[in-house]
Amino acid sequence: MKKILTVLSSNAALTEKTIERIISEVSEKTAKEFRVLPESMLYSANGGGKRIRPTLTIEFCKLFSGDVNAALPLAAAVELVHTYSLIHDDLPCMDNDDTRRGKPTNHKVFGEATALLAGDGLLTLAFSVICSSAELTPEAKVRAVKMLADHAGANGMIGGQQIDLIGENKRLTKDQHKQMNLLKTGALIKCAALLGCIAAGADEKAFEAAESYAENVGIAFQVTDDILDMGEEDQKTTYLSFMTKEEASAYAKELTQRAIDSVKDIEGSETLVELAGFLAAREV
Amino acid sequence: MKKILTVLSSNAALTEKTIERIISEVSEKTAKEFRVLPESMLYSANGGGKRIRPTLTIEFCKLFSGDVNAALPLAAAVELVHTYSLIHDDLPCMDNDDTRRGKPTNHKVFGEATALLAGDGLLTLAFSVICSSAELTPEAKVRAVKMLADHAGANGMIGGQQIDLIGENKRLTKDQHKQMNLLKTGALIKCAALLGCIAAGADEKAFEAAESYAENVGIAFQVTDDILDMGEEDQKTTYLSFMTKEEASAYAKELTQRAIDSVKDIEGSETLVELAGFLAAREV
Repeated sequence: MKKILTVLSSNAALTEKTIERIISEVSEKTAKEFRVLPESMLYSANGGGKRIRPTLTIEFCKLFSGDVNAALPLAAAVELVHTYSLIHDDLPCMDNDDTRRGKPTNHKVFGEATALLAGDGLLTLAFSVICSSAELTPEAKVRAVKMLADHAGANGMIGGQQIDLIGENKRLTKDQHKQMNLLKTGALIKCAALLGCIAAGADEKAFEAAESYAENVGIAFQVTDDILDMGEEDQKTTYLSFMTKEEASAYAKELTQRAIDSVKDIEGSETLVELAGFLAAREV
Repeated sequence: MKKILTVLSSNAALTEKTIERIISEVSEKTAKEFRVLPESMLYSANGGGKRIRPTLTIEFCKLFSGDVNAALPLAAAVELVHTYSLIHDDLPCMDNDDTRRGKPTNHKVFGEATALLAGDGLLTLAFSVICSSAELTPEAKVRAVKMLADHAGANGMIGGQQIDLIGENKRLTKDQHKQMNLLKTGALIKCAALLGCIAAGADEKAFEAAESYAENVGIAFQVTDDILDMGEEDQKTTYLSFMTKEEASAYAKELTQRAIDSVKDIEGSETLVELAGFLAAREV
């Protein structure tokens, strides 16, 4: 378990450095007295977390012999999108959360209006970052922008958030609940892995392996979350609404194995194999 | 005045048809019971308006001998961004508006959470649309995505909205107020014209003419707005905070002439010359 923690923290540091540079550039182009917007963007971008999505981008790029420098703008972009989604998700009209990872949420510090704009700004910035990359071909940039937009948009993450909203007032069926998770958290996790393949200029077989790995890891991650949060949110539909705790544990293990099977025969996949185990294990 | 109205309404119809097709595709990929999100996106995208931004994209593309079909995805993208900005701007934490163009605002119909997501979805979709174009080269798509992201983001439209927010509690100086307008409304208007140049594959001189035209038209439009709204929002900083009504009228005329001068020697610029006059004239 020790090696994967080192990989995660090294990839997180690279991503955070990239994001800080990008937001600093925004800040430098902003008149001093109006810098509260880039400040609030940086506040949430610096909010910590394991940076799993950027690690997937970087590790899939490396797995298919790509240059880490080609992966970094894409890793940063996917994390900017994840960050914006958390800011908007925390707003009073959504989950109305006061804290995230032990810090006050963006709107608690900067007010709702600036938090809304900070989210909008981070989402928009993600697409600019991809296009500014010096390492990617125009074809790769276009593919990456479309990949990110489609997985983050109304047929991806945002669509999952909408299903989640509907689920607050109406019990979701098992299939609807799975669809919600595939979109709400799964889409961006899958996108992160696929962006790594784009950065590496990998072939279609590589994309298929990344997609299978990330889809299984994404569901396993959510099932594990639901086990850890068990009993906390009784009204909410979770995987535990459809299976016992033991069944859920077995399901997470099965999904993790499927993820591992997707990449284990590829040379250099040890880190991703270990990552899949790490994500499903956590505190369970 | 009659010809320009025909041009506007024909370009609006082309843009609306494109946007309806794009959102229909999102809706078709959404399970029937969860289609409230694409519905709310379409509700605001169908909200009317003169579609000035798409017309700038289409007319600058035509001016520099481009194909209208190459301009349409970019015209649709810039209008999707404009639409999202209106939805978020109308939210209770921003302007808290109940109606827009005589219709209930998005959040009044669909609730705040769905309105927030509809805005996020439209912004995200704009970047996907650009990448899906069959007419543009990868280089043109990358340039268009970056152009749109940079003009819509924290150093563009969103940055202007943040200055506007700050201006609610603090009198803006003349320079700060001008900066606010250049960003809040000016940036996307300028972007719309430049996207037309990208669609046409125009040269740098063309981009300069489009930039000068759109920048002047953008300020003239705002000055005219301020004259029309005079007295309605006494607390708010407007151009009338720094000049008399007569001075403002003269300023709008001067800006319009500068816009016209930027394009009048280019063959085929009659429509854009007429458009500049139309935008500044309105009901004044």
